[in-house]
Amino acid sequence: MVLFLIGLGLADEQDITLKGLRAVQSCSRVYLESYTSILFVDDFKARMEKLYEKEVTLAHRETVELEADDILLAAHTGNVAFLVVGDPLSATTHSDLIMRARTFQAPGASAPTPVDVRIIHNASITTALGSSGLAGYNFGQTISVPFWTEDWHPDSWLERIGENMGLGLHTLCLSDIKVREQSIEDMSRGIVRYQPPRYMLIPQLIRQVLAAAKEHKVDYLDPDRTLAVALCRMGADAEGGRRGELIVAGTLAELLSYTEPTAEERAADEKEDDAYEEENPTASEKEMDERREARAVRRAIAFWGEPLHTLILVGKRLHPMEVAYGQTLTRPGSRWAQVAAEDYEVHN
Amino acid sequence: MVLFLIGLGLADEQDITLKGLRAVQSCSRVYLESYTSILFVDDFKARMEKLYEKEVTLAHRETVELEADDILLAAHTGNVAFLVVGDPLSATTHSDLIMRARTFQAPGASAPTPVDVRIIHNASITTALGSSGLAGYNFGQTISVPFWTEDWHPDSWLERIGENMGLGLHTLCLSDIKVREQSIEDMSRGIVRYQPPRYMLIPQLIRQVLAAAKEHKVDYLDPDRTLAVALCRMGADAEGGRRGELIVAGTLAELLSYTEPTAEERAADEKEDDAYEEENPTASEKEMDERREARAVRRAIAFWGEPLHTLILVGKRLHPMEVAYGQTLTRPGSRWAQVAAEDYEVHN
Repeated sequence: MVLFLIGLGLADEQDITLKGLRAVQSCSRVYLESYTSILFVDDFKARMEKLYEKEVTLAHRETVELEADDILLAAHTGNVAFLVVGDPLSATTHSDLIMRARTFQAPGASAPTPVDVRIIHNASITTALGSSGLAGYNFGQTISVPFWTEDWHPDSWLERIGENMGLGLHTLCLSDIKVREQSIEDMSRGIVRYQPPRYMLIPQLIRQVLAAAKEHKVDYLDPDRTLAVALCRMGADAEGGRRGELIVAGTLAELLSYTEPTAEERAADEKEDDAYEEENPTASEKEMDERREARAVRRAIAFWGEPLHTLILVGKRLHPMEVAYGQTLTRPGSRWAQVAAEDYEVHN
Repeated sequence: MVLFLIGLGLADEQDITLKGLRAVQSCSRVYLESYTSILFVDDFKARMEKLYEKEVTLAHRETVELEADDILLAAHTGNVAFLVVGDPLSATTHSDLIMRARTFQAPGASAPTPVDVRIIHNASITTALGSSGLAGYNFGQTISVPFWTEDWHPDSWLERIGENMGLGLHTLCLSDIKVREQSIEDMSRGIVRYQPPRYMLIPQLIRQVLAAAKEHKVDYLDPDRTLAVALCRMGADAEGGRRGELIVAGTLAELLSYTEPTAEERAADEKEDDAYEEENPTASEKEMDERREARAVRRAIAFWGEPLHTLILVGKRLHPMEVAYGQTLTRPGSRWAQVAAEDYEVHN
């Protein structure tokens, strides 16, 4: 029997390959990596079940240790599918599951009973980045930018951007996803309750990058002189109320400016906050911060649309063809070509 | 009407996505990037036509300038599909075709008549490299190693390996493909005749890397102290006489050793060459070199199987988990773990 690790591709249930679909249909059990289900359309699991004509079971990442044995045992009596958004080995490698499969010993067995593993690859953000017009050869290492908390600002990724920039290479910046997270308060009280999912959006991603750059006083992330390409919902079609893929090129400052409130909006926000504080005199600073945060998220989504958002920081080893293509992805008034010429010394 | 650029994925016609297949079926014309057809199974085009229930037309890369207008014009009267092996924007970007589509003006039209372009992504070698067990985050820039000729040894890629190695990053090395190439002799005589397709195989790829390293006296590609993972026919199933995917980890010297002739084989080869020269006293040195080359190719294919072959050079920013996984991909007697411990200072 076979354990299939099957990539689901970028956007919805129609992105599975024919080979992947045939494999799923041969399986007696179908697991879906749990956070996958939230990334896509709301009724993703139901749509998969209809397409596969199979029941799909959510496998939660935090219990994968336990569930791995269950999955591997099931693969002794029938084929088992483990479905993963994107490519099954790209973001999280799942190499632990594969190694356990290779050395698996079923309970009660006197010798190893390894499970045959087959990988069915699919598109991931590392292939979709071609839609930026930037050449795959000119990318350096990929980084992940995690959400900062009040007292924890991890920024080891900044050094990696610096390494790429030092070689003139582009950097793919993946944004953080928080799914099935518990609050510290709940955990300390032993309450199992999950926070609503959070996805880092373009403005927050850029702000964190710039904040880290400022803190470490690096010389390579000037918001007015650094080009970037924002990639949102790659591979997604517009459907129902959901927007399709959006790609915008510009300087970091420009990409930020698209969601900056106007002076009037800012005044209205402050007025609204004042009114709220008057009505709720006990409102804590934390509560007010959450209101402001929610407002920023609404503005970000109004322009950029729903997650997932990804950002490419453009390195100086830039080709005129990349500049020309990027120009077609800019908004009116963008300084893209000017910065490419002046700061990147690439003339289109 | 829409011009679809559709990725075919890694190995055969079943690797297209459901979305890609649906798009093809909506098209009145279906073009296949010509060299794609040779990469896969022999009867790939016929299998595609059967699957799609459509005629598929080969689009040759060297005439794409001319054919682009034809393709864009066709996209005004019906949907058109342009099929590409792997991801449509990964290896060759096709950004030229997309930009022309956006500014297209049909003959006789008085204003631009742009064509709507839709990309349907798929797996490429940049997602499949996850099967090496090496973390995607630890890869630097990708390089392409071109075939050397007698008097042309391009090696600018060596510097890029050095840049990656300097940061401790892994390097994905794509091997050269020569399809529909003309010989210099034929070209100078104005004869249009194509050479048989050639694919760089693992031993030749490693030998060129080591030769360039020796010539430039770099200190980072010692064959006994550099780890590598060879990836062959990623995503392919064994089928008919064709072998499925093969992944082998080891030192560069080990990967080379698997196709080294034994002393007996070497003696037999020489004897055979002597006999041939005796029978063909006018045989040129070039002819004899071609015999030796053909023999090396046969030996390479006997061990590694058919193309495509890809190599990952392992950088020093290596995680114990990557070492443990790589160990499962080694051949008996490999010094993988020892070199990881001694030279990479990573202990599993």
